[in-house]
Amino acid sequence: MLRRILPHSGAAALRAAIPTQTSRTLFPCLHHTTRNYSIKAPHAASATPPGIDIDPSKLIIEETKTPGKLQNPEELVFGKTFTDHMLTIEWTQKDGWLNPQIKPYQNLSLDPATCVFHYAFECFEGMKAYKDAKGQIRLFRPDKNMARFNKSAARIALPTFDPQAVIDLIARFVKLESRFIPEKRGYSLYLRPTMIGTQKTLGISPPGSALLYVIASPVGPYYPTGFKAVSLEATDYAVRAWPGGVGDKKLGANYAPCIVPQKEAMSRGFQQNLWLFGEEEYVTEVGTMNFFVAFKDKKTGQKELVTAPLDGTILEGVTRDSVLSLAREKLVPEGWKISERKFTMKEMDEAAQEGRLIEAFGAGTAAIVSPVRHISWKGKLVHCGLKDHEETGELTMRVKNWMEARQYGDEEHEWSYICN
Amino acid sequence: MLRRILPHSGAAALRAAIPTQTSRTLFPCLHHTTRNYSIKAPHAASATPPGIDIDPSKLIIEETKTPGKLQNPEELVFGKTFTDHMLTIEWTQKDGWLNPQIKPYQNLSLDPATCVFHYAFECFEGMKAYKDAKGQIRLFRPDKNMARFNKSAARIALPTFDPQAVIDLIARFVKLESRFIPEKRGYSLYLRPTMIGTQKTLGISPPGSALLYVIASPVGPYYPTGFKAVSLEATDYAVRAWPGGVGDKKLGANYAPCIVPQKEAMSRGFQQNLWLFGEEEYVTEVGTMNFFVAFKDKKTGQKELVTAPLDGTILEGVTRDSVLSLAREKLVPEGWKISERKFTMKEMDEAAQEGRLIEAFGAGTAAIVSPVRHISWKGKLVHCGLKDHEETGELTMRVKNWMEARQYGDEEHEWSYICN
Repeated sequence: MLRRILPHSGAAALRAAIPTQTSRTLFPCLHHTTRNYSIKAPHAASATPPGIDIDPSKLIIEETKTPGKLQNPEELVFGKTFTDHMLTIEWTQKDGWLNPQIKPYQNLSLDPATCVFHYAFECFEGMKAYKDAKGQIRLFRPDKNMARFNKSAARIALPTFDPQAVIDLIARFVKLESRFIPEKRGYSLYLRPTMIGTQKTLGISPPGSALLYVIASPVGPYYPTGFKAVSLEATDYAVRAWPGGVGDKKLGANYAPCIVPQKEAMSRGFQQNLWLFGEEEYVTEVGTMNFFVAFKDKKTGQKELVTAPLDGTILEGVTRDSVLSLAREKLVPEGWKISERKFTMKEMDEAAQEGRLIEAFGAGTAAIVSPVRHISWKGKLVHCGLKDHEETGELTMRVKNWMEARQYGDEEHEWSYICN
Repeated sequence: MLRRILPHSGAAALRAAIPTQTSRTLFPCLHHTTRNYSIKAPHAASATPPGIDIDPSKLIIEETKTPGKLQNPEELVFGKTFTDHMLTIEWTQKDGWLNPQIKPYQNLSLDPATCVFHYAFECFEGMKAYKDAKGQIRLFRPDKNMARFNKSAARIALPTFDPQAVIDLIARFVKLESRFIPEKRGYSLYLRPTMIGTQKTLGISPPGSALLYVIASPVGPYYPTGFKAVSLEATDYAVRAWPGGVGDKKLGANYAPCIVPQKEAMSRGFQQNLWLFGEEEYVTEVGTMNFFVAFKDKKTGQKELVTAPLDGTILEGVTRDSVLSLAREKLVPEGWKISERKFTMKEMDEAAQEGRLIEAFGAGTAAIVSPVRHISWKGKLVHCGLKDHEETGELTMRVKNWMEARQYGDEEHEWSYICN
């Protein structure tokens, strides 16, 4: 009752033997992968057929005739008010990417059968544009965002694109919206590149059309009056991500399921939840941020900055990557050890009890870093090193300053991309 | 460095000790749950504040002035053409459910910052309306669909509703669209109840507004010329669902991540993929259907119909439940054993090699049952009992007939709901 491989296609058996870039990019995190398959794809990480790529020289700009009033920067609420325009680029399977457009910010008109409403064909990025001391507009590591955007899109069969083309278009877009970027330190223009599937049929298949768009929201500092340490609740009754799943991609699909655990945490007085994984209760990430903790080694006293490894169960944060890079540059010479490794709530608890938990903080685009006071876990509070009167530790503050120096261009660095 | 529980609220410690209906409903499948929490909620499974529930007596109907032409039933493609109207019900946190409307089928106009585009606040149902021999319109177990719809909505912080109110409204809607339901056996009107979050801010929080809508698409038989057995590819390089996740809810979030593995299977000549779980390679479900297999016991020769249990990693299919119920009614008296239990690819492979794998089929609303010829697994084909010239087994055919008798009202049964 058993036959040898694949009668449908002789070539299939051959293809099955060739691990490819595509498979490694889309499914990088499998512990017990036994096969790797090839996809014929124009971009390394793409699952789409060839077609015309995005061409910034074809940009069509239609400026608004009713420019909006600027809001008082002190009254800005994250992601609530938007600039005058939006950047849109349509894609169809037949013609590839169509001409990019900047046009007045406006509603999307979509058939109720459109696949984004039913099957979550959607992914996004979060990034910021900053004004430097000379009034120049700067993006922060936009190449990292675009690389992740492409990986997210490919994982859900949406089209990929030339990253530099979209960076060029975003630069053009933010320059047009320049007046919306407050000049004060801590203020910026939050950018939300988004891609949605727009095919209007209910059959579950790769979308035959898509829309990439970018909207922009002026934002103030996450902690307008200085740091305010947050309290976390460790979530052990729901699981955000799994090896072989999509928890490392920035898909809409990863967000809606996180709201109830987040609400539950808030209902008990905690600002965010902390996602654990497995019976070992590995610490993975905070509600919407990556998580860092600083330990002192039990025997040697050496300081160690630790964050969870990129094993497919955590988001590949750009801020996470930047913090790691800065820490290796600045802290290793001071004797620190910098680790991407698994660590458990038990390890944190023990370190806290023994006075070896120096600091903990979340890391993400919105807050940069967010100091953590304590974590509720198994009915007790694991204290994360802050004294009662303190709202941040020294390391968290230093990381914030290092990050801002490069974001606002105080320190010239290749991470900062000037919009010319 | 350790303190006793929750300084923020004395009540929180008390609440933490009380497992509730809500927690059990939202997080039913945890193997190592150590806590259960309460949510203050109007409906058992709801995470929304109280408000006015849906009131069918407030229905407003605006009929189209340009009725569409009926398509030739033989040319219908699943989910591609729609009827003249749609049912819509808006919800706001402030006012609860607003007046239901039936209005001409039309695009949705939504701000590009709307949360459905970014965080996958979306869930749906699939159900059908049938015309019986007397021309009456019948729904099949709509209570099951509405119960699941509420559970899906609650899990992603969307509002819940009175199930009977929506069944009444759907009945009204399909009667208005009666002319679109072909009268031939195998034809029906596919209904797609959908709920999306419509709040237009980028902050990640429970949506403050939502839209429930129902669209309808006339569909033909899944196998117009009789059954056609499908071939599956076991997917061992990606994971659909996991304990503590949301794989048992009908969320958009569960669908987009499944397309690439589905495409990969098709690229090698298989119609669908088969989702496995864990190192044991438990068989969970087919791409978009539940999965059943019939074994003969190695020692006793007793026949056993098996499907995976509702442990949180498979969709709680209405067809699955109906097949189990029918099998218990009709097959147990014939000596069969009916089991909801875990089973592995290894068990299937062994049974196939020993001639004890009688039949296998997928089960879902679209096809009812879908016979399976073989499964590609670890480089070999596990043959599922069909002879080369057969497209279905006897059991699969019987199940289809039992189901259709109740769907089309040949057999009067409480599962069939007549739209009066």
